[in-house]
Amino acid sequence: MRGDMKRVMLTVAYDGTHYHGWQLQPGRITVEGVLNECLSGLLSKKTAVIGASRTDAGVHALGNVAVFDTDARIPAEKFSYALNQRLPEDIRIRGSRQVPSSFHPRKTASVKTYEYRILNEEFPDPVKRLYSYFTYRPLDEKRMQEAAAYVVGEHDFASFCSAGAQTDTTVRTIYDCRVDRLDTEIVLRISGSGFLYNMVRIIAGTLMEVGKGNIPPEAMEGILKAADRRAAGPTAPPEGLTLLSYRFPELEGR
Amino acid sequence: MRGDMKRVMLTVAYDGTHYHGWQLQPGRITVEGVLNECLSGLLSKKTAVIGASRTDAGVHALGNVAVFDTDARIPAEKFSYALNQRLPEDIRIRGSRQVPSSFHPRKTASVKTYEYRILNEEFPDPVKRLYSYFTYRPLDEKRMQEAAAYVVGEHDFASFCSAGAQTDTTVRTIYDCRVDRLDTEIVLRISGSGFLYNMVRIIAGTLMEVGKGNIPPEAMEGILKAADRRAAGPTAPPEGLTLLSYRFPELEGR
Repeated sequence: MRGDMKRVMLTVAYDGTHYHGWQLQPGRITVEGVLNECLSGLLSKKTAVIGASRTDAGVHALGNVAVFDTDARIPAEKFSYALNQRLPEDIRIRGSRQVPSSFHPRKTASVKTYEYRILNEEFPDPVKRLYSYFTYRPLDEKRMQEAAAYVVGEHDFASFCSAGAQTDTTVRTIYDCRVDRLDTEIVLRISGSGFLYNMVRIIAGTLMEVGKGNIPPEAMEGILKAADRRAAGPTAPPEGLTLLSYRFPELEGR
Repeated sequence: MRGDMKRVMLTVAYDGTHYHGWQLQPGRITVEGVLNECLSGLLSKKTAVIGASRTDAGVHALGNVAVFDTDARIPAEKFSYALNQRLPEDIRIRGSRQVPSSFHPRKTASVKTYEYRILNEEFPDPVKRLYSYFTYRPLDEKRMQEAAAYVVGEHDFASFCSAGAQTDTTVRTIYDCRVDRLDTEIVLRISGSGFLYNMVRIIAGTLMEVGKGNIPPEAMEGILKAADRRAAGPTAPPEGLTLLSYRFPELEGR
C-alpha cells in the first residue's frame, strides 16, 4: 500500500571527521552515500536525496538540508526518528517536514550561515582538535572584526574562490560577518545568499592573517577589488568549519 | 652527561574517547601507558609518571596532573613541547614545571574541578556526542541548581560513591557546585578537596532526576543522610565528564 507522492525535507547534522565530504563518490564513505543507503533501507526502495550544500571532507554541519520524494505512508515529521534509528551516530537528522514538490534546495533562494572556530591559546585542547583550527600565535580579534566588516554587502568574491570552481558569477551577497572571542576560542560567523567554493575558509584564512598583524584590516578592500585568488590569504583547514543553518524564506509561514 | 635529579609536573589534557581510562593496564591502551612510553622514548630511559587522578574510560581531561623524576638536562618548562612532538593528538601536555622532589600529586592537598555537560534538546548534535550526555527529556536547570546547593560543604558522600571503592572515609568537602544552561547545554561545575569513586557522575545522574521532576530538590538532604548508594540516582555516563583543573595551594607563589 502506497500513499500519495510527497517531497520531504531533512535537516542533516554530521561530524565530518570520518567522511569524504557530503557528495556521493564511488568507493568512498560520504554523508550523502550513507544517507541514501539508510533511506533506501527504510523505504525498501532505492531512494536518493538532493542535498543543499556539498560540504568538503572534514567539514561539519548542524543544519545541512536534503530532500527526497516518496510515496511511503510515513508522516513527513516521523522521518527524523525513523532515520536516526538506522544512521551512524555521527550523522543525525534534526528535523523532517513536507515541502512543495517543486522545492529544490539548491535552486531556491536561501540564507546560509557558517561558523569557523579557531582555538587560540598556548597549547591545543584534545577535545576541540576535530572541531576547531588551533594556532598558538596570538590573534587580535578586534582587528579581525574590523576586516570582517568589509565583506558584508554585495561584492565580487573572485579573490575568495578556489581555482577550478565552475560558476556563472563570483558576485555574492553577505548579510552578516562577525568575529568574537569566547575565552580561548575565536568564532567567525558569516551569513549570505550563497558562497563560492572554499569562500568561508579563504575568508577565515585571510582574517587570521589580519589577526596576526600580517595584513592591515583596511587591506580587505583592495583584496576584494583585485578579484584574484592570489590577493587573499590561505585557505583555512576544514575541521574549523561548520555549516550551521539554512533559511528558505519561500518556506516560511507555510 | 646527566644533570641533577629533579621532579617535573605535567598538566595533561586528553580526549578520553579511545582510552581505557588513565591507569596503566596490561594489554590495554591507557593515557598513563601512552604517556610513560613517550616519556621513556624522549629520555631514552624507562620512566613512569605518578598521576593525580585515575579517570575512568571515556572521561576527558583538560588539567589532569602527573609527575616524574629525571636527571636529564632538559629544562622542566620544555617538556610540554618535547612530549607533544611524540604524543598522539588526543593527548596534549599543556604545561610543565619543576616541583619539589617531595611533591606527590595524590598526597598533597588540592582543589579539583570537574565539569559534566548534558546536551538537552530534541535531537543529538553529532559534533557533541563524544563530549556530552544527550537527553531529549526537558531538564529544569533551576531545580537542578537548587539541588546542587545541598552538596556544598563537608558531608559524608557515601550515597554518591560506587560500591567496591576502597577508602578510609567517605567524608569530602565540596567548595562549589553550579548548574547553568548555555543555550542547549546544561553544564555542571563542581570543585572540591577530593571526590569518591564515580562521585561526580552519581551527583550528575541524581541532578538529572531532579531536573526531570522525578526527585524534588530538597530530597538531596535525605539522600546525603542515608549514606547509602541506593538512595541516589543513576551514575551518569562517562562521556559527559571532564576533569578541568587541579590547584595545589602548596605550590602557589613558588
